[in-house]
Amino acid sequence: MSTFVQVPAESDFPIQNLPYGIFSTSCNANRRVGVAIGEQILDLSAVANFYPEYVQNALRANVLNPLMALGYDAWNDVRTITRDLLLAGSSLDKNEELKKRAIFKQSDSTMHLPASIGDYTDFYSSIHHATNVGIMFRGKENALMPNWKYLPVGYHGRASSVVVSGTPINRPLGQTQPVDGEAPVFGPCRLMDFELEMAFFIGGPPTKLGERVTTKEAAKRVFGFVLMNDWSARDVQKWEYVPLGPFTAKNLGTSISAWVVPVAALQPFAVPNFPQEPKPFPYLQHDEVFNFNIELFVDIKPENGTQVTVSHSNYRHLYWTALQQIAHHSVTGCNLNPGDLLASGTISGETEDSYGSMLEISWKGTRSISVGENQTRKFLQDGDEVVIRGFCNGDYRIGFGDVRGKVLPAIPFEN
Amino acid sequence: MSTFVQVPAESDFPIQNLPYGIFSTSCNANRRVGVAIGEQILDLSAVANFYPEYVQNALRANVLNPLMALGYDAWNDVRTITRDLLLAGSSLDKNEELKKRAIFKQSDSTMHLPASIGDYTDFYSSIHHATNVGIMFRGKENALMPNWKYLPVGYHGRASSVVVSGTPINRPLGQTQPVDGEAPVFGPCRLMDFELEMAFFIGGPPTKLGERVTTKEAAKRVFGFVLMNDWSARDVQKWEYVPLGPFTAKNLGTSISAWVVPVAALQPFAVPNFPQEPKPFPYLQHDEVFNFNIELFVDIKPENGTQVTVSHSNYRHLYWTALQQIAHHSVTGCNLNPGDLLASGTISGETEDSYGSMLEISWKGTRSISVGENQTRKFLQDGDEVVIRGFCNGDYRIGFGDVRGKVLPAIPFEN
Ligand SMILES: [Ca+2]
Ligand SMILES: [Ca+2]
Ligand SMILES: [Mg+2]
Ligand SMILES: [Mg+2]
Ligand code: NI
Repeated sequence: MSTFVQVPAESDFPIQNLPYGIFSTSCNANRRVGVAIGEQILDLSAVANFYPEYVQNALRANVLNPLMALGYDAWNDVRTITRDLLLAGSSLDKNEELKKRAIFKQSDSTMHLPASIGDYTDFYSSIHHATNVGIMFRGKENALMPNWKYLPVGYHGRASSVVVSGTPINRPLGQTQPVDGEAPVFGPCRLMDFELEMAFFIGGPPTKLGERVTTKEAAKRVFGFVLMNDWSARDVQKWEYVPLGPFTAKNLGTSISAWVVPVAALQPFAVPNFPQEPKPFPYLQHDEVFNFNIELFVDIKPENGTQVTVSHSNYRHLYWTALQQIAHHSVTGCNLNPGDLLASGTISGETEDSYGSMLEISWKGTRSISVGENQTRKFLQDGDEVVIRGFCNGDYRIGFGDVRGKVLPAIPFEN
Repeated sequence: MSTFVQVPAESDFPIQNLPYGIFSTSCNANRRVGVAIGEQILDLSAVANFYPEYVQNALRANVLNPLMALGYDAWNDVRTITRDLLLAGSSLDKNEELKKRAIFKQSDSTMHLPASIGDYTDFYSSIHHATNVGIMFRGKENALMPNWKYLPVGYHGRASSVVVSGTPINRPLGQTQPVDGEAPVFGPCRLMDFELEMAFFIGGPPTKLGERVTTKEAAKRVFGFVLMNDWSARDVQKWEYVPLGPFTAKNLGTSISAWVVPVAALQPFAVPNFPQEPKPFPYLQHDEVFNFNIELFVDIKPENGTQVTVSHSNYRHLYWTALQQIAHHSVTGCNLNPGDLLASGTISGETEDSYGSMLEISWKGTRSISVGENQTRKFLQDGDEVVIRGFCNGDYRIGFGDVRGKVLPAIPFEN
């Protein structure tokens, strides 16, 4: 399979990937549906007439929601035609004038949030992460809560605060309790953290309130995956989260990568689901393999420093699958919409070099790591840029690009 | 002030109210902006040309979001013109043909969700409710969590699951742990509950991520209030909520009343803010009175039974004001959008007859209440219709109509 577009070796975006994104260019500020190929973007709005009529409006939209809503069979149709268009000798390849109008350099383009996100949910599905946090706050004996192996624990996040890669994040002000049992204080967050996560977009038609999506149906409901950094104000979280969960500690911003990688591109990298004991309830069972070998990296680039890798984890560490997350999310009747974003929770591996947050890497601030010459970190400092990268590696690479964001200083409070 | 529309005594909707809603009629299925007056609806889309040009598009929209986005001054302009149009002798009054096209009976109309709700947040701001729940689950000594009097505790809810009054709610299936320390079971919720709440819609232009809304600015950000029933599966909640808060126990449906009552209509019924000790942090302080004497009632109507009032509470019991809720929500930088819905949390008074949930009324299921001849309840049964009503009473009544919903039997699980 060879495309007429030049694709560098080790590119995240070979013809086997074909991730979707929303982009604009300096000459055309309209947001359009694009597919990444090598260092270029194919503008699907410019080639929409090559596709069946029932998908053309979705390809001319300014968010991916209409394409997501069309559902599984449509995604396969679109993917096949996009691939064929990009093959050497295709009708697009032979049309120099159209290529000029339909292919843009990524470096000349601006990426936008891929979808209008109606609702965003964050799970807590990495057993190593949940165990680490449990040990830190409750001791080794009671590390995992009693419910953890029975259901994919999750909570509703703040959809409006999801932003695309590149958006800077201000260090938040908030309430914290520096000394247990004493009065809280108000001021800049001192324990600013990232969370290494992945997330997927829901596709297919909206479901109705009261309707459940089974694990069987769920496979056709996963449109594609992105990388996520769920910025977290640890000290704010610790003080506020009892008894209703994290709130202002998490709604200060959650960053996602710009390219949505289709499940079809990940399937060659499927690995066995995480073994589950006890066996989950029937509504959470499925035979289908829905786990993937996706290598994940977190880098920190201090202001005026160089980019240093602080974690190397893998999506495969997740205990609960995306299909189980969907089935559980809807089991009491919650309706799901195309464009809803469901995140994995922090993805930590077993070893210290694979932990997915500074909370774990610094073990609650009890140890420092090096991030370059004379630079150490327990949590994030102003000016730090966090870069999360991810890819599947084989004969070719299915990459996600990256999600990056820089911590800016707190904005002082004025009443 | 006298309107040409006949307004029955004790109507929720005198000319001093003028709440907004989204309605359609049997002859015109288009959703339109309406204002309730007596037993009628004034169709603002039909009289939009009487308003300044800058608000006309908002009055011709099919949700209230554009009107909400226009902001405080626009709301005052619209309210003044609407009132003038409804006065006896107005240009509308004199135009019989226009009245036929612009005024509809509520009984002939269908009400819809008033706004497209981008995000929905539920607070926990009634001190009596938080204390009751605390006593039940942690004992009298530790009833209120240490953070409760320092910040308005809240969590992100599921926006997609907010539905308009009248929508039936299926009893959910879910995981529960009937015996502490033993394995959980899967099946229909056994402790189905309502929560008596009120909620308000955010107005004004969208704020940016990182931007804080101060308590001073917040007063111009409250578009109006609705009644809310936050359906709750108590047994599901108890098992799932540690450590990230309620999830599937709450996303099975949250019902709101159809008419959004403007703050301007509530202001004559303002009462002093709840005394706060300790004094809150500066970012939560405000001098403005933003508490209201709104009487609230919960009725249960068993299948084939009669409607019985089980609670009589009041909005004024809330410890935290809406202005404090907004300031806290955005303090770490969360962006707010017009149409966001912020709910009060269960509103309980001090006395048993003013508790806002069956959890409290039945004191965790330890006592029954009568709901008619030979009918008792600890929690809700299938076929029960829950009706929440509310109004301010004075020389006239500012009412909210009601929010009602019936509990339907669980839909059996099929994989
Ligand atoms: Ca997270
Ligand atoms: Ca509630
Ligand atoms: Mg976040
Ligand atoms: Mg609810
Ligand atoms: Ni009270």
